[in-house]
Amino acid sequence: MTTPIQTDLNQRAEQLLREDANKIEQLIAVQLDNLTAPKCPLYEEVLDTQMFGLSREIDFAVRAGLITRAQGREIISELEQKLAHLYSLVLPSPNQQS
Amino acid sequence: MTTPIQTDLNQRAEQLLREDANKIEQLIAVQLDNLTAPKCPLYEEVLDTQMFGLSREIDFAVRAGLITRAQGREIISELEQKLAHLYSLVLPSPNQQS
Repeated sequence: MTTPIQTDLNQRAEQLLREDANKIEQLIAVQLDNLTAPKCPLYEEVLDTQMFGLSREIDFAVRAGLITRAQGREIISELEQKLAHLYSLVLPSPNQQS
Repeated sequence: MTTPIQTDLNQRAEQLLREDANKIEQLIAVQLDNLTAPKCPLYEEVLDTQMFGLSREIDFAVRAGLITRAQGREIISELEQKLAHLYSLVLPSPNQQS
């Protein structure tokens, strides 16, 4: 049984996590715009650190019962897809390389 | 006004965060037991990463209204004190060095 207060908290938790995922996407987009070498170690470290932070937030939200494990996976998965899209705009595709 | 469900969630959130802080303390204790050089870069990186993860969890919990900003600061502050105590057991004190 869920109460209105719990539902509010669940929705708020998911919204906060999605906002954080969006911030990571924006950070990476800015980095890709300004770095000539997206494969540089500094860039990868920033991304790793941000993804680790988000995964800790999501894990906490799951354990606190605010979101389901599936919702958490979806937030990460959607962010990964958006980042892959950003890379595809910057990095040369296999066809362009050959 | 808080409801019993909210109070439960608040207590559970604080308990989870304290458990995570304890895990970091234990991790650092094990590292200090096994490393001859607590000032090595790898050691500092592990600590920085873990503290960043915990700070992200706490920040999320505050924004979700599960704990207060003061409670969050207290969890971090207590962990820092415990870590300082661990260091003091391993690192030579200024008196011993002279």
